Amino acid sequence: MADINARTEIGVTTGPIRGSKKVHVAAHSGSGIRVAMREIHLEPSSGEPPVRVYDTSGPYTDPEALIDINAGLPELRREWIRARGDVEEVAQREVRPEDNGQLGPDRSGGVAPFPNVKKKVLRARAGMNVSQMHYARRGIITPEMEYVAERENLGRERLAQYIRDGESFGADIPDYVTPEFVRDEVARGRAIIPSNINHPESEPMAISRNFLVKINANIGNSAVASDVAAEVDKMVWSIRWGADTVMDLSTGRNIHDTREWIIRNAPVPIGTVPIYQALEKVGGVAEALTWEIFRDTLIEQAEQGVDYFTIHAGVRLPYVPLAAKRVTGIVSRGGSIMAKWCLYHHKESFLYDHFDDITEIMKAYDIAYSLGDGLRPGSIADANDEAQFAELYTLGELTHRAWASDVQVMIEGPGHVPMHKIKENMTKQLEVCGEAPFYTLGPLTTDIAPGYDHITSGIGAAMIGWYGTAMLCYVTPKEHLGLPDRDDVKVGVVTYKLAAHAADLAKGHPAAQVRDDALSKARFEFRWRDQFNLSLDPDTAEQYHDQTLPAEGAKTAHFCSMCGPKFCSMKISQEVREFARLQNQDSESFIATEEAEAGMAEMSKVFDETGRELYMGAGDREHD
Amino acid sequence: MADINARTEIGVTTGPIRGSKKVHVAAHSGSGIRVAMREIHLEPSSGEPPVRVYDTSGPYTDPEALIDINAGLPELRREWIRARGDVEEVAQREVRPEDNGQLGPDRSGGVAPFPNVKKKVLRARAGMNVSQMHYARRGIITPEMEYVAERENLGRERLAQYIRDGESFGADIPDYVTPEFVRDEVARGRAIIPSNINHPESEPMAISRNFLVKINANIGNSAVASDVAAEVDKMVWSIRWGADTVMDLSTGRNIHDTREWIIRNAPVPIGTVPIYQALEKVGGVAEALTWEIFRDTLIEQAEQGVDYFTIHAGVRLPYVPLAAKRVTGIVSRGGSIMAKWCLYHHKESFLYDHFDDITEIMKAYDIAYSLGDGLRPGSIADANDEAQFAELYTLGELTHRAWASDVQVMIEGPGHVPMHKIKENMTKQLEVCGEAPFYTLGPLTTDIAPGYDHITSGIGAAMIGWYGTAMLCYVTPKEHLGLPDRDDVKVGVVTYKLAAHAADLAKGHPAAQVRDDALSKARFEFRWRDQFNLSLDPDTAEQYHDQTLPAEGAKTAHFCSMCGPKFCSMKISQEVREFARLQNQDSESFIATEEAEAGMAEMSKVFDETGRELYMGAGDREHD
Repeated sequence: MADINARTEIGVTTGPIRGSKKVHVAAHSGSGIRVAMREIHLEPSSGEPPVRVYDTSGPYTDPEALIDINAGLPELRREWIRARGDVEEVAQREVRPEDNGQLGPDRSGGVAPFPNVKKKVLRARAGMNVSQMHYARRGIITPEMEYVAERENLGRERLAQYIRDGESFGADIPDYVTPEFVRDEVARGRAIIPSNINHPESEPMAISRNFLVKINANIGNSAVASDVAAEVDKMVWSIRWGADTVMDLSTGRNIHDTREWIIRNAPVPIGTVPIYQALEKVGGVAEALTWEIFRDTLIEQAEQGVDYFTIHAGVRLPYVPLAAKRVTGIVSRGGSIMAKWCLYHHKESFLYDHFDDITEIMKAYDIAYSLGDGLRPGSIADANDEAQFAELYTLGELTHRAWASDVQVMIEGPGHVPMHKIKENMTKQLEVCGEAPFYTLGPLTTDIAPGYDHITSGIGAAMIGWYGTAMLCYVTPKEHLGLPDRDDVKVGVVTYKLAAHAADLAKGHPAAQVRDDALSKARFEFRWRDQFNLSLDPDTAEQYHDQTLPAEGAKTAHFCSMCGPKFCSMKISQEVREFARLQNQDSESFIATEEAEAGMAEMSKVFDETGRELYMGAGDREHD
Repeated sequence: MADINARTEIGVTTGPIRGSKKVHVAAHSGSGIRVAMREIHLEPSSGEPPVRVYDTSGPYTDPEALIDINAGLPELRREWIRARGDVEEVAQREVRPEDNGQLGPDRSGGVAPFPNVKKKVLRARAGMNVSQMHYARRGIITPEMEYVAERENLGRERLAQYIRDGESFGADIPDYVTPEFVRDEVARGRAIIPSNINHPESEPMAISRNFLVKINANIGNSAVASDVAAEVDKMVWSIRWGADTVMDLSTGRNIHDTREWIIRNAPVPIGTVPIYQALEKVGGVAEALTWEIFRDTLIEQAEQGVDYFTIHAGVRLPYVPLAAKRVTGIVSRGGSIMAKWCLYHHKESFLYDHFDDITEIMKAYDIAYSLGDGLRPGSIADANDEAQFAELYTLGELTHRAWASDVQVMIEGPGHVPMHKIKENMTKQLEVCGEAPFYTLGPLTTDIAPGYDHITSGIGAAMIGWYGTAMLCYVTPKEHLGLPDRDDVKVGVVTYKLAAHAADLAKGHPAAQVRDDALSKARFEFRWRDQFNLSLDPDTAEQYHDQTLPAEGAKTAHFCSMCGPKFCSMKISQEVREFARLQNQDSESFIATEEAEAGMAEMSKVFDETGRELYMGAGDREHD
């Protein structure tokens, strides 16, 4: 975790993850595309090859990379975008004081502007549509699609070892992901590849229930706590531990500049909720919002490179009163802003009325819709109510409208939902929104554990991920209570990574089990370091082990602090296996034979001579 | 959390939980039984009565109680037990050096013996059966059953407010729990009330899928870490946060004395795995175990007051080889000990062969069986395999054998199971074991997150609790890595409490939602203190809040650090509600009327005059 090659006062964590190496894998097509992955190396005694895992950390974990936060990341996709010949370079919209919540040109009260800001930005040439969906529907396999295919195929070369197992609830998960499969999924709207042409630094990734389940981490300043360095650090920190996308939910001042720092240094897609910034521009008075101010904000953010926009166009005037009788009313910030606007003006939402105008902007930059669920339930009591589903039906209508213009769409989902009502959310969403990817927040399965809502929601997230949600928005331990710090971000990310992985396993995702098996085998064979390194969080695993047994020798010991040297459950298993091997038989049948009886007697003797001093230990403490 | 009234060098945490008061509620029958509960008091502005919650903390949270760890707790059940006229007082089996892992009478190397040890213990008179099941089957409602009924009825007096909702997968959860219902459930074997006659300090509780889902916390010394004061403190600490039972899994030296300290101070049932101590008595050599040594250990522990024994009688000789081909073999310590014994001697397990002899002991003290799943899977790869289910079928056979002698039984379950294989465990267990309560460890839904296995397992626990598991055995963050400390115990307990509660909600347990609704309402109304106090862990909730906004005034502020004073989702909801009220209509229809239009215009005016400066804030950060 040493800070290497960093030349800025904005410090971020760089260097390899413990026990791992960054690799770049050439695409099978020979196109020259090289996909970043991480290899976890196992001890030679394992006799096993390294385990390749999906890697979201970008260049920050690559010791070869030169990291310069003031310059931003290399533009991986720049040539791909230019080569398609459908974009033009235009002067960037001038940054105005109100973009940063300032009243005049004096920026001294704010954060330092990003030094390497682009003066020229890209947009589609007149009449062109630069969305991945548009290419896909014309039969074009883009480099982005090829990258995604290679990235998703992780571990599948070992597939022959595995019998596919799982319940995918109607998903269509292939044995191998081909670029053509990616293209077809994007064309059908079942997968999105958020990839603003002005964010060429991003490494392509797909959100789809037929691919690996993804997770999003939220960061952002608020009016009461603001520090751009901390937010850039949180972005890098969250992708280090596995965030597939990051949403910048900043409010208050310095929104524009904070976002610029984040996007220029982000190798993952960045999402925002543009209404937050628009609201700041009108002094926080929801009813003062106008379509013109909102539109201008979209352009501003589109030019910066935001990859997906949360748009709460489903909060329609007639639905607002449905939320009145709820225990917790409207808990979405964007939803409440629009509800207030609708109510004040007694008019239909300008987001709904101008939806097609928004779509025109989306397709000129390839920004994906994340259709916001402004009426999601904020408590168990409000789950799956009329307000929520009324909005979902509108989101379905809007999905088809966006698709008519070849614009990529995902749908946001709840929220707070008890376990028995989770599946209905998924089933309805698939049906109403034509299998557009679902992007849910948890859901939290109970309201009574503030301080532990990463867990109340991790339960719901794993379940809805299994049922078909394509991306899970993390929740940190600080949810409902305060702004997450660095530690909270890590706990949130790791919790959601494990939930997403549990979902992949349950869906029967090919080869998802490779890592579980490698870790369990390491555990069984007392390869402590391999067990730590294969963990989602090797640092914490090792630290917990060392709290009880700090001695270096304990990392190679055939026991641990849970059972001590005499109580070994793993060891006896190894003896049983050896016993079966000596019989040269499969273990199910050998017990019944005469040879087995003879073998038992012989093993009895061996045990008697050597076994009484067997060291025992390790394994699960578990409950006995 | 001040240590009050404690007069011992063994320090434990006493005093009320923040914002709560211990109450003793008289049973409806007028029998004089008073059931301990906890009341969470809400701010007067809420206009709501206190919320009563299930309380496992015993006298330690009662400021009126005199706590003396050296003397032990008052004997709540002593007179109930004596009044039945079926027990006799006998001299306690003499404690031998080997009971504490010592070779001679010098106990100086060990822990101090409990000062107030009983010299006389109880056992059933010859030919008598003192089990709750035996009484139940004879139609007797014991005070224990009455206590349980009152305890389980928590919040049900508010039931009229609630429409029962949920999916219980065939459970039989009544609107109200009567003592007769408890008796009938115990008689049928669907509920157990672990209540050794030598543990009269315990407050009766039931384990059953038709009652609230319970949780167990494991504590215990090991050979490499041993400290009786720490273990007593962990016991008190774990019940403070909600552990319904505690298992003492000590190994190594001082097992007898450690257990005595724990039981004498425990208001919850205590479970053990007697084979651990038996193994210590034979120097850790599994094959040296004999029925006689094991039997003597059962008597020793029965007389001390252990309420349930984990007995791995399902690890039969023919099943041992089935575990040979597994990725992680046998991970249960008890299971591996018995497997080794069977393999060495090439004999059927003495636990299986002597099962009826064990049952005779169980019924003389009213100890419940916790039939151990010695062959549970220790990795995703091994879930639901032949070895596991072969053992389960034997546990079913043994359940019926125990029931033939009116002895209470629960069944232990896995372990490591991916989500799509969890339900099969529950379905098979109910079928094979005649609806005897299931008691599962997690299950962990992936292997790849050591350091976070309270969460990987909390996911599985919530799900299997929903499907019907009666008690969830906690897993701490240290699982697989080290011995849990005090903080780990708390995190494990709170995680499992929230999982159990999520299960109660999903099952449609009557009135389970009372606490969620009270907390959500407090959140919506910016009653921060009520929100903290209603949480499963008020201390952590408040601490997290204060990290961002430490000022005292922030606890009454109508905003929080997440959104700041201008971004309020809750506030707009209150406005919408007010708007509907002004219309004097139900919210669904008012929007369509002319009055609504008029009202809208009027509200527009009100907003214009007062609303532009509305403070906003609070609510979920969530993802937008």
